[in-house]
Amino acid sequence: MTTPSVPIPTLRRLPRYYQYLSGLRAAGQERVSAAHMAEVLGVHHTQVRKDLTMAGCLGRPKTGHRVADLIAAIEGFLHWDSHSDAFLVGAGSLGTALLKYPGFEKAGARIVAAFDNDPAKAGHRIGDTPVLPLEKFANLAERMHISVGILTVPPAAAQATADLMVASGIRALWNFAPVTLDLPSHVIVENLELFTSLALLLRRLSDSSS
Amino acid sequence: MTTPSVPIPTLRRLPRYYQYLSGLRAAGQERVSAAHMAEVLGVHHTQVRKDLTMAGCLGRPKTGHRVADLIAAIEGFLHWDSHSDAFLVGAGSLGTALLKYPGFEKAGARIVAAFDNDPAKAGHRIGDTPVLPLEKFANLAERMHISVGILTVPPAAAQATADLMVASGIRALWNFAPVTLDLPSHVIVENLELFTSLALLLRRLSDSSS
Repeated sequence: MTTPSVPIPTLRRLPRYYQYLSGLRAAGQERVSAAHMAEVLGVHHTQVRKDLTMAGCLGRPKTGHRVADLIAAIEGFLHWDSHSDAFLVGAGSLGTALLKYPGFEKAGARIVAAFDNDPAKAGHRIGDTPVLPLEKFANLAERMHISVGILTVPPAAAQATADLMVASGIRALWNFAPVTLDLPSHVIVENLELFTSLALLLRRLSDSSS
Repeated sequence: MTTPSVPIPTLRRLPRYYQYLSGLRAAGQERVSAAHMAEVLGVHHTQVRKDLTMAGCLGRPKTGHRVADLIAAIEGFLHWDSHSDAFLVGAGSLGTALLKYPGFEKAGARIVAAFDNDPAKAGHRIGDTPVLPLEKFANLAERMHISVGILTVPPAAAQATADLMVASGIRALWNFAPVTLDLPSHVIVENLELFTSLALLLRRLSDSSS
């Protein structure tokens, strides 16, 4: 059972709560109030309460929430208690970094294979993940019913690669290429915008210096 | 001269416009209308016009904008026609990927040195960038008046490393660690939230399947 109407800002905040709560758990803290979370994380306390309610955490105004309960609720709500198999295309430096990045499986995605059109890369492993020639993508994605694709190719190859992935059954695309992809409306795209994030930082720095 | 009151959503959209316009320029297209950009990029046309006006592009309702003018205006507005020197800390797989990632200088930041507390990494270069022992950070950052820091250390080291960076004069921190940093209010932090982005993708996929 899922709730399609969760606001995207809530979906953006829940992983931040999760990281904060994981830190509390690691430090041995057992209870926390929404008000305290709000203060530490810089989110209005009404918003924290709404977000937690939406994730299925019941309010405990007097005693605060149990940290373990909040973690379990957020994990369930974000489907982090299960995971999706994903294929990655583009085993360059960024793709390699993602393949070595710890914690994706915990965050709901397991990269089961990587693909590259450079024959020198195919046949090797990066971390535990095999790198295969790009020609094998379509056949394997269809046979393994892969829905999630991670796109880490250079900008010039991004659109053609995304088209191939979608034609092979990918319905959710995590795009790291700084390109606005033109894809069918049923495909869900989440762009990880490195340059936008950097631009924001530099602009805010410049504004603060003026 | 800077305008501190630019809305953050505008700052997030301008790099997307820029990428799209760069594509048009590469394809030899000389003019484009705000209405067309709005349609392709999925942003309301009123918003596109407001954003472009804020970046200093004058409207040309009849003939459309010159692509080259829009590109130059956005570059100037985002300070992409100059760049800030930045130090990166954490030369692991993610830090290495960023050091090899093309285009940061174009996007306003030049990573002039990387630092790591692993003695085996110090003394080498990644791409063109020297990797130095972390002990040298404070002295070099102060001497070179570095304002921008990029944080790519493991989560457990993130807060202590950020504290060191701020104590050494860093005023703008691009944080890749999935950690909510506790820093003085004058420090500008932009969190690149990999796990949040992935969570959004998977949740939207799950919602669309239900």
